[in-house]
Amino acid sequence: MYKYLDKVNHPKDIKSMDFNELDILAKDIRKFLVRSLSKTGGHLSSNLGIVELTLALHKVFDSPKDKIIWDVGHQSYVHKILTGRKDNFKNLRKFKGLSGFPKESESEHDIFDTGHSSTSISIGQGICCARDIKNEKFNVISVIGDGSITGGMALEGLNHIGYTQTKMIVILNDNEMSIDKNVGAMSNHLSSLIKNSTISKVKDEFEKILSISKSGELLLKTATEVKESIKSKFNHQECDFFKSLGISYYGPIDGHNIKELVSMLEFVKDKNGPVLLHIITEKGKGYRPASNEPDKYHGVSSFDIKTGVRESTEKSISNVVGEKLSKMANDNKNIVAVTAAMPSGTGLNIFSKNHPNRYFDVGIAEQHATTFCAGLAKNNMKPYFAVYSTFLQRAYDQIIHDVCITKKAVTFLIDRAGIVGNDGETHQGIFDLSYLNSIPNIFVMAPKDTKELELMMDLSLEINAPVAIRYPRGSSYHLGIGEYNKLEIGKYEVLSNGEDTLILAIGIMVKHSLKAKGILMNENINPTIVNARFLKPIDETLLFDLIRKHKNIVTIEDNVLTGGFSDRINKFIIDNNLDINILNLGIKEEFIEHGSVDEIYDMIGLSPEKISESIKNFVNKTKISKDL
Amino acid sequence: MYKYLDKVNHPKDIKSMDFNELDILAKDIRKFLVRSLSKTGGHLSSNLGIVELTLALHKVFDSPKDKIIWDVGHQSYVHKILTGRKDNFKNLRKFKGLSGFPKESESEHDIFDTGHSSTSISIGQGICCARDIKNEKFNVISVIGDGSITGGMALEGLNHIGYTQTKMIVILNDNEMSIDKNVGAMSNHLSSLIKNSTISKVKDEFEKILSISKSGELLLKTATEVKESIKSKFNHQECDFFKSLGISYYGPIDGHNIKELVSMLEFVKDKNGPVLLHIITEKGKGYRPASNEPDKYHGVSSFDIKTGVRESTEKSISNVVGEKLSKMANDNKNIVAVTAAMPSGTGLNIFSKNHPNRYFDVGIAEQHATTFCAGLAKNNMKPYFAVYSTFLQRAYDQIIHDVCITKKAVTFLIDRAGIVGNDGETHQGIFDLSYLNSIPNIFVMAPKDTKELELMMDLSLEINAPVAIRYPRGSSYHLGIGEYNKLEIGKYEVLSNGEDTLILAIGIMVKHSLKAKGILMNENINPTIVNARFLKPIDETLLFDLIRKHKNIVTIEDNVLTGGFSDRINKFIIDNNLDINILNLGIKEEFIEHGSVDEIYDMIGLSPEKISESIKNFVNKTKISKDL
Repeated sequence: MYKYLDKVNHPKDIKSMDFNELDILAKDIRKFLVRSLSKTGGHLSSNLGIVELTLALHKVFDSPKDKIIWDVGHQSYVHKILTGRKDNFKNLRKFKGLSGFPKESESEHDIFDTGHSSTSISIGQGICCARDIKNEKFNVISVIGDGSITGGMALEGLNHIGYTQTKMIVILNDNEMSIDKNVGAMSNHLSSLIKNSTISKVKDEFEKILSISKSGELLLKTATEVKESIKSKFNHQECDFFKSLGISYYGPIDGHNIKELVSMLEFVKDKNGPVLLHIITEKGKGYRPASNEPDKYHGVSSFDIKTGVRESTEKSISNVVGEKLSKMANDNKNIVAVTAAMPSGTGLNIFSKNHPNRYFDVGIAEQHATTFCAGLAKNNMKPYFAVYSTFLQRAYDQIIHDVCITKKAVTFLIDRAGIVGNDGETHQGIFDLSYLNSIPNIFVMAPKDTKELELMMDLSLEINAPVAIRYPRGSSYHLGIGEYNKLEIGKYEVLSNGEDTLILAIGIMVKHSLKAKGILMNENINPTIVNARFLKPIDETLLFDLIRKHKNIVTIEDNVLTGGFSDRINKFIIDNNLDINILNLGIKEEFIEHGSVDEIYDMIGLSPEKISESIKNFVNKTKISKDL
Repeated sequence: MYKYLDKVNHPKDIKSMDFNELDILAKDIRKFLVRSLSKTGGHLSSNLGIVELTLALHKVFDSPKDKIIWDVGHQSYVHKILTGRKDNFKNLRKFKGLSGFPKESESEHDIFDTGHSSTSISIGQGICCARDIKNEKFNVISVIGDGSITGGMALEGLNHIGYTQTKMIVILNDNEMSIDKNVGAMSNHLSSLIKNSTISKVKDEFEKILSISKSGELLLKTATEVKESIKSKFNHQECDFFKSLGISYYGPIDGHNIKELVSMLEFVKDKNGPVLLHIITEKGKGYRPASNEPDKYHGVSSFDIKTGVRESTEKSISNVVGEKLSKMANDNKNIVAVTAAMPSGTGLNIFSKNHPNRYFDVGIAEQHATTFCAGLAKNNMKPYFAVYSTFLQRAYDQIIHDVCITKKAVTFLIDRAGIVGNDGETHQGIFDLSYLNSIPNIFVMAPKDTKELELMMDLSLEINAPVAIRYPRGSSYHLGIGEYNKLEIGKYEVLSNGEDTLILAIGIMVKHSLKAKGILMNENINPTIVNARFLKPIDETLLFDLIRKHKNIVTIEDNVLTGGFSDRINKFIIDNNLDINILNLGIKEEFIEHGSVDEIYDMIGLSPEKISESIKNFVNKTKISKDL
C-alpha cells in the first residue's frame, strides 16, 4: 500500500535510503498520517510539519543510544511511525492504545514523557550532564517549537546550557505557531532572521556540496569533506539572542529539505558546546486544509479526507465562556482577558475580536500571565485569565505570592478541569481542587452546567478578591434542574430531596449524580442530591441541617481525593463532631491514562453507573454494620 | 544626629537637594543602615548597594503616582527610609514591626508585595497596560537584579514587554550577585558588557554636560538640553540580548554616581516603549565587612559595627545537610547536588567544594532545576535538589509532570519548611505538606530532629522514586529520644506511651509535643506521643493499633491544615470507620506575617504552651460530651 513506508519498522530501515527514497517515504508518511488521523483524530498539523526533520534525525542519529527529546510531545507521531509503532495508529489516543505523546513505558525510543511545553532543554541538559560525569558518548537532541522556547523554563534552560557549555543540540522548529499564531518579542526576532536570511543562497551551496553525493551512503563516506565545505561556504547568520547566551546558532534552514537537514545535522553533531539549529517548517504541510488553517487542525477529531470537513461538534463550553466574557466586557470597561497562547482553545478568540485593546496573549507563559493579571488588578482592572487546569499548575507560586497574599481581584477561568480524555496523564486537570484548596483568600467554584457557569462569571464581577471557576472540557450542556438565578457566595443548592443518603457533588459530578440517582431508585435508594458549587466557602448552614437529617453522606468530585473537596467536607464533619457515615468518591492518588472521557470515568469509578454501584454497596454496608 | 537624613521624611524632601547634598545624604543613609541593622539584623549588603539608585529614583520620579517596583523586595530599605518609615527601623522585621519587604498595607509607596524574585516586570507591565487602557499618565519602574532577571517568569515578562512595546522602565541592578555569586550565560553576557564598556569615557561626557548644572533645579530646567546632549554624545552600547527582544538598552553606568543616575533617568523617562537601564553597583558598598563578603551580609543577625563580627550562631540544619550529602557522595558516585542560586543558604557550598563536578548551581530557576534533576535521574544519577520550601512552589508543575508521572528518583531537600520567621508572608514554608500530599508517586517525610534528618537522607538513597524531605530553618537540634536506627519507609515511632490521648506530630512539631507533654502531665493528662515522620505513606498498622487504644487523637503540623497531614490522618480514620475524637492543630487558612519564629508559633497556637492548652481544652470537652 505504501511503497516505502511498508518497509520501515525501525530507524535502521531508513539508514540506507537515499534522498530520493526518503522524499518518497516522506510522502508516504504524510498520506498515512492524513488517512489514519482522519479516522482516529489526533494532532495533525504539527506532525505534517515535522516529517522531514524526523526522517533526517533518525538518519543521522542512532536512537535510542542518541536521545531525541520531543518538546510538547504531540509532534512525535512520525517518530513513533519510524520506531515500530505504525500499526498501533489505529488505536491512537484510544483507551489502552497508542499514546499521543512520547511515553517511556511505550518504547525505548521515547526518552521522556513530554506533554507540557518547554521542558525538553532541561531534560536534555540533565541527561547530558549525567553523560559527561560518567564519560559516556552519545548525542542529545531537544526538538522545541518557537512557541515553547519562550516558556520561562526553556529560557532558564538556555541560560544554563550556555553557561555550562554543555554539548547538546537544540533544534528550534519554527513554524511561527504554537497552537495559535505565536506572539512575543522573540517570535518577532526569529521572524526577522527568517526575512533577512539567505535560505535560497544557502540552498545553492548545499546543492553544490551535495551534488557529489547522491545517496545517503555516499554522503556518509564523504562526511568530513562535506562538513569542511559547509564550514567554509555556509556563513551562518548571527542570532543576537542565542549568541548572547553563549549558544552557537545555525540557520535558518528549510525544514522540509531532507538533504539540507541531514547535512546540517551531520555538521553540528560533533560540535562541542550547545548548538541551536533553527529550521523553518510549515504546520500542516502537504495537506491543504491543514496548511490553510493549522490551528483548526492542531488537535482534530475524525474528518473527511477529501473535503477536510471535521465531525460536527456541538458548541464547546470554552466558546460559551468566550462569548459570555465578551458580552460582559461590553458593559464593564474594566474587564481584561488574558491567555497563555490558547486563544481558540479557551474561547478567548471571540473576546479578542470584540475587544482587541483589552485582550492579551502573553505566549506560553502561565507564570507571567498570572502576575501580569495581578498587576492589571492592582491598577483597578478586572482581569480574567482563561487557562487549562493542567497548565495553571505552572503558576502555582504566582497564585499564592502575587494574587492571593494581597487579594488581587484576578479571576481564573479554569478550562479542561477534571478528566480531559485522549491527552492522558500529562493533561488531566485533576489537581486543581487540591492545589487551590489550601491557598488562603481565593474563592473556588465549579458549576453544575454551562448555564450556571455563566452565572458564576456574573458573580465573579461582584467579588473584589481572587476567584477560580473550574469547568470541564467538552460540549456545553444544560441540566435544567434547580434554580438559575443570581448566585450567592457559598450557597449550595438542593436539586432533589431524598432520604437517608446525602450526595454532595461538585461540578460535572452533579450531572453524574442525577443519573446515578435514576439507577439507585431501582434499588430503593432515594438519595438527596446537592449541587455543592463552592469548594470554598462551603455552605455550612445547609450542611448542618442536611447532615442532621441523613445517615450517610457521599462526596463526589472529578479530582484527586487528597486535599480537595472531600477533605474539606470531611474536615467540616470532624470539626463539628457530626455523626454520619462517609463515602468519598473521586480519583485515587494516581495518574490517569488516556482514553475517551467516558471510558476513563468508568475506569476510575466516576461514571453514573459506577457511582450508583459504589453508593449501593456503601449504603448496604452501613445498614449491615448498624444491624450488627 | 544625621545632618541631612534627619530632614527627610518624604520623597519631596529630597527634590530640592543638589548633588552634593544628596551625596552627603547617601552617607547618612549608609551610616543609619549599618547602625540600625547592627542592632536588629536584616538585609544589609543589597541595601548598601542601592542607596544612590533609590535617591535618584525618588528625585526624578514622583512616588506614589509613579510606581517603583522592587524585585525581591529586600532591597527596599532605602526606599522605606525615604518614604517616612525610618523611625520604624528599630522594629525592622520584628513582630508587628516594619516588614523587611515592600508591603502594600504599610505604605502607598509600596506598590506590590514582593518577596519571591523575578516578579517585577510582570507586575509592572500589568500596571502599565491598565494605565494605557485608561489613558492615564505616569511612569512605572521595575528595579530588578542580575540574578532575578534570569528567573523564568522575568524572561517571560521581557518577551512580552518587547512584543507589546509597553512604555516602562526596567532598571537592571547588576552587582554580579543574587545572594551568592551569580551564574548563567546571561550573567556572563552582562559581565562582558561591563568589561567592554566605556564607563570612564561616559563619565567624562556626563561631567561635561553636567558642569553647566550644579544643582537639581538647574538640571531640571535644562533637562531637554541635557537630554539632547546625552543623545548625541552618549553612544550607548548595544546589548544583543535585550535588543533582540525589542527592548532599548542603555548602559552600563555607575550605579553609585547620583548625577549620572539622575541624568540617565531623566533621559529614559519620556522614552516610548520598553527601556532597560543597566547600572553597576557594589553589594555592601561603604561598609567594608559587607563589601568584602556580601553573601555573608546578605541577611544578617545583629553584629558589631566596628569589627563586623556577627552574633555567633550554632550550626544550622542546612549545614548539617550540606555536610551529610557531601559525605554520602564520597561513597556514592551517582549523587549529584543542585541548587537554584542558594549554595550557602542550603548548605550546598560544602558539597560544591568537595564535589565540584557533581554540583550544579542553575541560577534562580526552580523550574529548570527540577526538570534538570529529572533528566539527571533519567540517565541514572541520584540528584538532590536542595531548595527552600517557599521557592519550590515555583516548580509545582515540574514536580508533577517531569518527576512524578514517570517516578524519577529525584530527592527534594526542602529547607525552611514551616515558619521561617522574620521574612514573613512571602517566605513561610507552610504549603509544602499540602502541595506534595496530593501528588502521586512521591514519598514525603519530615524528621523529628537533625539526626533523624540524616537517617532520612540515608533512606532516600535506597528509594528509586521521588522523595521529599522537609525540615525547618534554624540551628540543628537533637532530641535524644526514641531510636536512631536505619529507617523503614512509612514506619512511625512511639516516643512516649501514655493513655487516652494520642498525639501524632510531624517534623519539628514532635519537639513541641514533647514539651507540651511536660506541661500536660501537670494537668493529669498523659498523652502518647508518636513521631509521624512520613506524610505518606502513613503507618497504617501502628495507627490501627493505637487508635483502638485511645479515646482522643491530636494531629500537629507546622503547615496549613487544609490538604496536609491532618487531612490524610482524618481520611484514614473515616475510610476505616474508626471511632475516636479528633483535634487537628496546624495553621489556619491564612498567610502568616513576620516576627520571630517563637512569637509566630505562639500567635498561631503551635508553641508548646499553646499546644498543651488546646489539648487540655479538647480533652476536657470530650470528657464533658461523654458525660452528657
